[in-house]
Amino acid sequence: MKILLASLLLFIFMTAVSAQSARQRAAIESDVRAVMNEQSAAWNRGDIEGFMRGYWNSADLVFVSGDNVTRGWQPTLDRYKKSYDSRAKMGTLTFSGLDVRVISTDAAVVLGSWALDREGDKPKGKFTLIFRKMKEGWRIVHDHTS
Amino acid sequence: MKILLASLLLFIFMTAVSAQSARQRAAIESDVRAVMNEQSAAWNRGDIEGFMRGYWNSADLVFVSGDNVTRGWQPTLDRYKKSYDSRAKMGTLTFSGLDVRVISTDAAVVLGSWALDREGDKPKGKFTLIFRKMKEGWRIVHDHTS
Repeated sequence: MKILLASLLLFIFMTAVSAQSARQRAAIESDVRAVMNEQSAAWNRGDIEGFMRGYWNSADLVFVSGDNVTRGWQPTLDRYKKSYDSRAKMGTLTFSGLDVRVISTDAAVVLGSWALDREGDKPKGKFTLIFRKMKEGWRIVHDHTS
Repeated sequence: MKILLASLLLFIFMTAVSAQSARQRAAIESDVRAVMNEQSAAWNRGDIEGFMRGYWNSADLVFVSGDNVTRGWQPTLDRYKKSYDSRAKMGTLTFSGLDVRVISTDAAVVLGSWALDREGDKPKGKFTLIFRKMKEGWRIVHDHTS
């Protein structure tokens, strides 16, 4: 009984350790980058709902911008729709300088820069994204943009 | 019989894991809050080095403020010392509204508000902190402040 339990614990431990392998990290980084590529592609065809698919569809989503905190997927979508209520305001979004750090098999942090190219101005800034692996795939659960 | 035994083992294991995780989460949250309490106490006695003990002492520390990214513990300390070169500029720091989310046994995210009370102005904002458990204790490895 004790040996069985110890074997089970060892098995779980070994699984967790091997999960941290370089190959898995590279796969996580690739998955996370793919979500962000889909986000910018959606944005650049004027599809805010498509862009929002990168975010965790939950009331617990956290979106921080400057001194404002928005909680929940729907309020975050509403905020984007209000701030970018025309194709011209959306402009062309580019993410750059992405630094992806894998925390665990189901968590990663991305530091990066965003820039909007639009007529009249070219706003830009930095973001920190916390991604978690959900049933539906890797999703942003926390976004701090400045 | 084997299935019964396996089910029993699984039940014992799951119960042990969930009991451990609730207790572990509370312990992690308490450890993280203690680091932040030490930080604000250090700041409020004019001790920037003491405040900086809450940060990972590594060249890989990431500190994002507005559109600026500072990398490394020493450059972050230098930045603080330059921005707050007198006791009056440091004022009195308060952290509030801390929302601690445990990601794993060695990672947690904190969303919160900071405020400085000083003669002349009362700057304030939000921060997202990523804590990792290091040999030396829980340390901030990534700070995004706005």
